[in-house]
Amino acid sequence: MRLSTLETYIVYHTIPYMAGSPNHSFSIEAGRPEIEFGVTNQSTKWVLNSPDPPGFVQQICQSIKSNVFPQGNTCSDEKKHSACARVVAVLSSIFPVLNWGRNYKASNFKNDFISGLTLASLSIPQSIGYAALANLDPQYGLLAIGPVAVVSLLISSMISKLVDPAVDPVSYRNLVFTATFFAGTFQALFGILRLGFVIDFLSHAAIVGFMGGAAIVIGLQQLKSLLGITHFTTKTDVVSVLEAVVNSLGTSWYPLNFVLGCSFLVFILITRIIGKKKKKQLFWLPAISPVISVIISTLIVYLTRADEHGVKIIKHFKGGLNPSSLNQLEFNGPHLGQVAKTGLVCAIIALTEAVAVGRSFASMKGYNLDGNKEMLAMGFMNIAGSMSSCYVATGSFSRSAVNVSAGCESAVSNIVMAISVLISLQVLTKLLYYTPVAILGSIIVSALPGLIDYKEAYHIWKVDKMDFLACAGAFFGVLFASVEIGLLLAVGISFGRLILNSIRSDIEELGRLPGTDIFCDKAQYPGTLDVLGVAVIRLNSGSFCFANANPIKERITRYLSEKKQMSGIILDMSNVMSIDSSGIVALEEIHKKLVSRNVHLAIANPRWKVIHKLKIGGFVEKLGSECFFLTVNEAVDVCLSSKSIGLPSC
Amino acid sequence: MRLSTLETYIVYHTIPYMAGSPNHSFSIEAGRPEIEFGVTNQSTKWVLNSPDPPGFVQQICQSIKSNVFPQGNTCSDEKKHSACARVVAVLSSIFPVLNWGRNYKASNFKNDFISGLTLASLSIPQSIGYAALANLDPQYGLLAIGPVAVVSLLISSMISKLVDPAVDPVSYRNLVFTATFFAGTFQALFGILRLGFVIDFLSHAAIVGFMGGAAIVIGLQQLKSLLGITHFTTKTDVVSVLEAVVNSLGTSWYPLNFVLGCSFLVFILITRIIGKKKKKQLFWLPAISPVISVIISTLIVYLTRADEHGVKIIKHFKGGLNPSSLNQLEFNGPHLGQVAKTGLVCAIIALTEAVAVGRSFASMKGYNLDGNKEMLAMGFMNIAGSMSSCYVATGSFSRSAVNVSAGCESAVSNIVMAISVLISLQVLTKLLYYTPVAILGSIIVSALPGLIDYKEAYHIWKVDKMDFLACAGAFFGVLFASVEIGLLLAVGISFGRLILNSIRSDIEELGRLPGTDIFCDKAQYPGTLDVLGVAVIRLNSGSFCFANANPIKERITRYLSEKKQMSGIILDMSNVMSIDSSGIVALEEIHKKLVSRNVHLAIANPRWKVIHKLKIGGFVEKLGSECFFLTVNEAVDVCLSSKSIGLPSC
Repeated sequence: MRLSTLETYIVYHTIPYMAGSPNHSFSIEAGRPEIEFGVTNQSTKWVLNSPDPPGFVQQICQSIKSNVFPQGNTCSDEKKHSACARVVAVLSSIFPVLNWGRNYKASNFKNDFISGLTLASLSIPQSIGYAALANLDPQYGLLAIGPVAVVSLLISSMISKLVDPAVDPVSYRNLVFTATFFAGTFQALFGILRLGFVIDFLSHAAIVGFMGGAAIVIGLQQLKSLLGITHFTTKTDVVSVLEAVVNSLGTSWYPLNFVLGCSFLVFILITRIIGKKKKKQLFWLPAISPVISVIISTLIVYLTRADEHGVKIIKHFKGGLNPSSLNQLEFNGPHLGQVAKTGLVCAIIALTEAVAVGRSFASMKGYNLDGNKEMLAMGFMNIAGSMSSCYVATGSFSRSAVNVSAGCESAVSNIVMAISVLISLQVLTKLLYYTPVAILGSIIVSALPGLIDYKEAYHIWKVDKMDFLACAGAFFGVLFASVEIGLLLAVGISFGRLILNSIRSDIEELGRLPGTDIFCDKAQYPGTLDVLGVAVIRLNSGSFCFANANPIKERITRYLSEKKQMSGIILDMSNVMSIDSSGIVALEEIHKKLVSRNVHLAIANPRWKVIHKLKIGGFVEKLGSECFFLTVNEAVDVCLSSKSIGLPSC
Repeated sequence: MRLSTLETYIVYHTIPYMAGSPNHSFSIEAGRPEIEFGVTNQSTKWVLNSPDPPGFVQQICQSIKSNVFPQGNTCSDEKKHSACARVVAVLSSIFPVLNWGRNYKASNFKNDFISGLTLASLSIPQSIGYAALANLDPQYGLLAIGPVAVVSLLISSMISKLVDPAVDPVSYRNLVFTATFFAGTFQALFGILRLGFVIDFLSHAAIVGFMGGAAIVIGLQQLKSLLGITHFTTKTDVVSVLEAVVNSLGTSWYPLNFVLGCSFLVFILITRIIGKKKKKQLFWLPAISPVISVIISTLIVYLTRADEHGVKIIKHFKGGLNPSSLNQLEFNGPHLGQVAKTGLVCAIIALTEAVAVGRSFASMKGYNLDGNKEMLAMGFMNIAGSMSSCYVATGSFSRSAVNVSAGCESAVSNIVMAISVLISLQVLTKLLYYTPVAILGSIIVSALPGLIDYKEAYHIWKVDKMDFLACAGAFFGVLFASVEIGLLLAVGISFGRLILNSIRSDIEELGRLPGTDIFCDKAQYPGTLDVLGVAVIRLNSGSFCFANANPIKERITRYLSEKKQMSGIILDMSNVMSIDSSGIVALEEIHKKLVSRNVHLAIANPRWKVIHKLKIGGFVEKLGSECFFLTVNEAVDVCLSSKSIGLPSC
């Protein structure tokens, strides 16, 4: 006869409650006649007779199901369609071209063609620069699908520790390809196992701090090419880099590099400012200014033979299609563990960036982004890349923005871009021989200000000081220690804070809002009223577990010893989402202590899993089932009436 | 004019609300007249005009204050007393002897004397055994204040990795003393900084598993002395130990040791069963059975000269007072970091055991235990110990139990015990020369069954499967890997679970309990009713932060796309204790999505810190202040009425 009284209620109240309907009265009035000497009251029955929550195994299955097949529940509609239509739906979800390809027109192609060319002119010089940042020959960057500054820095700083690229460039390159392979594998795995949530482990604040720190570190690395220094450090922290720069300034640097680099840096920055002011007409100006700089500076060097006067030029440049790098992957070297770790870190950072870019454009254009599908695509791209002389690539905000503002309509613009890059590789090989290295440095530096989001950092400081601490930890960690330590600090602070928050041992005193049945935090609502002789306490933590059970117990005991003449204490458990065996033991000890002081204990609004555990753990039996209530108000009512008539219950 | 309306309410409702008083009506009735076209309703004002919560710095100060001076608030009473009385109070809190010493009588001493002697007879053989477990000469155990099995195992397994005790016993011993010094320092620091909570980081379940695993490992270690094996492994995992035993069985073991050890083990176990059955009269029997075994077995060996037939005896035994070991502490060796780590781990395990023992006796005898004071005492004891040839000591459950059941009345019984041990050291040195090692093994093994608490493990399994996982992880980690890995697994699983719990991305649908204003989880209370056209959703996590903001956003979006024809959605935030910048961004995106689908969003019952951050973060402004409510019920009312009259608000 479970819930029988509740069912009776339903029969009488089947008309959905409408605001202000006169037949509505508060439950305590309806339930009052049943509160007799020791007889369990109505809401207590509801609390104690709720069905069991899903078991451990059931929960895990449900969680897997909802993660792996998030659309599982809605596919019932599709069953009506034929099997053929479903195959088409699956195929077009894997190959989106099947969707947009059907309606593709010549006018679409015109737009895609223009944006593809614009994109190519941006990405050729940018990618060569990133390759230099990753300590690779320029063609590896140009060949890469879309390397970004931070991942290039990350891979170079982590692999340089294993093999010095200046000493053994071949095995360094092999390790980079192997790390790319691992990164792709991890990304694909994340996508297949629907572990999209891992990228959420880097909090927004941590990313802001990390990107800012990385931007400064990348900028400092460019001093090498801007100053034309030959011997540079492989470390990335500010102190080592500045030391290396100061040491070189005394011996070997060439001012011409600096002059060349800085003047084109100024040119690129000015075009960017112009492009921002006249977004509609001149959006293409900042996009093509890098390639203009490369062409002009190369011509200058070629005509003046400045390379003979100390201006560093690219020199080695291998054109043509990417050679296969399948046999360069090293899976049994001594560094395998470290390389796999590098792959994992790069995979996560690359995904974080790609998904962030994807989410902003999805939100801007109003479409939905399936993070897991995105990961799968990234993963396969990087696995394929590692086998064809590419290193870790990911979605780039600057290039996506150029693509969108150049009016791209579909993935065709990317195909146009790829073909343009390929042609450039064949044609421009000779030209790129004389390109000064300093120009590549200035192109990278010009992209950095966008990574330092000081406004967002200030906003984070204003909203949440602990969040800002994670941000600052990541920033200074990257700056003064290393990229990895910065990341570790950010993740550590974010999670440390999460743990500290979830094991708070605070308790809140509740009071009645005057004229209502509502009990609120006395600190939040200063006008609330105390109930005479009854203390209402709410636990301020989502879990009542080993890590906070003892402190909470001690706080309640201390609170009681401060208040004299309490006849009852009501524990509002509405916040407590989970309880473990230590929590139950603590409740038992609180009860024991209260009994010894002749104070009654009542539990109000235990959540589903909590009341289930309290039942299994035997606490409901120990305390007495009449001491459990649905609301604080009912518990207070029963406490007051039992006090006046001297009930021994709870 | 903050809270002015609330203040008006207070004027009219100053009489504390009594159960069933007829002038009481639910707030929504009182507040209804004010809900006019767009005018903010009463409870919304309360929600939005609450005072600011304490700031970041203030919170930290408060937290330090409440941790460092937990009694700070109650000392106002003491101000009335004179300064002299306060000095006495402080002194007697540091030296409890000042309290009980004043009333100490001859009859007290009689009881303390008997229990002290009983204790000494138990601890002499036990401590020698523990010293063997720690790979130290027997006198170091005998001299130690109170070594316990698990800490002995821990220190030996961790220091053996640095220096093999068989190869270089002197530097091994020095490292043990240094680790003891670090352990004492850490314990004292924990006490001074009031970091008592660190010992709560080992959950109850983890301790049960860890102790069980350690007991089995300790038992296996005793096979060395029980079988009289000469060459044994320094590893502690089951596989290595069994391998070493099997290897030795083929070559060099002496069955006489085994016969001797096993027969006395049976004797000790029988006396324990008898002692348990007749607790009142024969409690002393199990306590003195070890010393009887030692005496009898030593006599047997001495008379039969069994040591010449392969029975291993202690031999080296240095009597007299502990020599100073101050100059043996090594603070600049190559192992300093590892030794400090060993000290930290031992400090935490020793404190966990001591505080667990202390808490059970405090709860049994009804006194309060100040964990921080306890830690301070332990810390100074171990620092002093490290300088006088002792290794890490802690509170032992078995000895405390013997002390209590032998009728001790004060710390005098411990002084009696110490003097007895000292005399034994002087007198029995010769006798202990012939004590067979196997007896020490059997004494340790006899204490182990108490450490394997399979009943509690079953209880944990019944109450909480994840808790049991931590327990099993610790158990198998200790058994098959090492003591440290077992500990790490236990802490890792416990905290991993805590994090998973606090970043749940579940949402709950709420329904109205028929005939009431209460909205409850539809799964927990299956009789609840839906409100037509309005979805009420409660976030099921204590924090809405970087780690779960995106999944929660996606779940709400998915939920909405499943339900058609929703005109409003009410987000019950009563569970959310904290929100960070990622959470606010997610709320903004949810709002954006809802606006695009023409669904209204309302927030019900935001907590103090959450509403504060929403105000700072600008979300209140974006959503509109009229969309915040104190209770779900009011939000539903306003949603329904605004729907019927076509209000554009929220």
